[in-house]
Amino acid sequence: MFARNGIDKTSIRAIAADADVDPALVHHYYGTKTELFAAAIHIPIDPMQIIGPLQQIPVEEIGHKLPRLLLPLWDSEMGKGFIATLRSILAGNDPSLVRSFLQEVIAKEVGSRVDNPPGSGPVRVQFVASQLVGVVMARYILELDPFKSLPVEQIAETIGPNLQRYLTGDLPGFP
Amino acid sequence: MFARNGIDKTSIRAIAADADVDPALVHHYYGTKTELFAAAIHIPIDPMQIIGPLQQIPVEEIGHKLPRLLLPLWDSEMGKGFIATLRSILAGNDPSLVRSFLQEVIAKEVGSRVDNPPGSGPVRVQFVASQLVGVVMARYILELDPFKSLPVEQIAETIGPNLQRYLTGDLPGFP
Repeated sequence: MFARNGIDKTSIRAIAADADVDPALVHHYYGTKTELFAAAIHIPIDPMQIIGPLQQIPVEEIGHKLPRLLLPLWDSEMGKGFIATLRSILAGNDPSLVRSFLQEVIAKEVGSRVDNPPGSGPVRVQFVASQLVGVVMARYILELDPFKSLPVEQIAETIGPNLQRYLTGDLPGFP
Repeated sequence: MFARNGIDKTSIRAIAADADVDPALVHHYYGTKTELFAAAIHIPIDPMQIIGPLQQIPVEEIGHKLPRLLLPLWDSEMGKGFIATLRSILAGNDPSLVRSFLQEVIAKEVGSRVDNPPGSGPVRVQFVASQLVGVVMARYILELDPFKSLPVEQIAETIGPNLQRYLTGDLPGFP
């Protein structure tokens, strides 16, 4: 249902109805909707564990902090599951779950904070996503040498200013 | 052989020997090694058609010019073959062809021109690759909205300064 209808338009109630169980049961075993989503795509962490702390970070620092939050996670044992999921989604030609997550959850939680000028928020976030997805590709899927073994801090320092520019710098195409 | 041994260590002579034909025959039908490589991974254009013109561009402009060269190509009919190939390589879990191409051909042709301080060239190029692969993912594989339909010029203006920074700006981790 997440893949077909998107995360926004999928309710725990609808999932429970489809599974013919009580919604309270789904809540009990899976928690919030993003936790259920994480379980559905086999990532071992609730995305809100990353997105939540991000909300405490001043907008002017998000671009610098983001790779320092994500890279250690991706590099960890836990990250292997995430990479495997990304790979299988790519192989299965069904990117709708990743798309839905980026467009709905991330755009809403982060995009709303950088929506200046109005309307630019989703575009800003998608440029950030393009760089981060590219880092995942280069480091874990293509395993470019030396990129795959660069220290987290070196990658963070290199891409951080660029991510920050996407989030709060001048954005071509917007006045 | 390209996948197993890399592009550098694969000669037309070795390919011809493996196919039990005269190397001249391979040259006659497939041209140069990069043209043969392009045919092997089913991309309809010799990578040198992009890399060649790039060599005429001053180093200080490569980051700005690169997306203006590549995006129209990827957006074209011809690009669909490229995207399909990328997808199948990812699905097949064998990224060695893409890796070899990025590490050997691109690093040699472009990396050597931005190798300042010495040793930084390959790293610079791989950061550029990470952003460009991420654009391919966001625009053609994940098909993020509105990213998938942003004008080429808007993407080029947005990522160009960042690519240029990777190529000729300060690079963390290098003195």
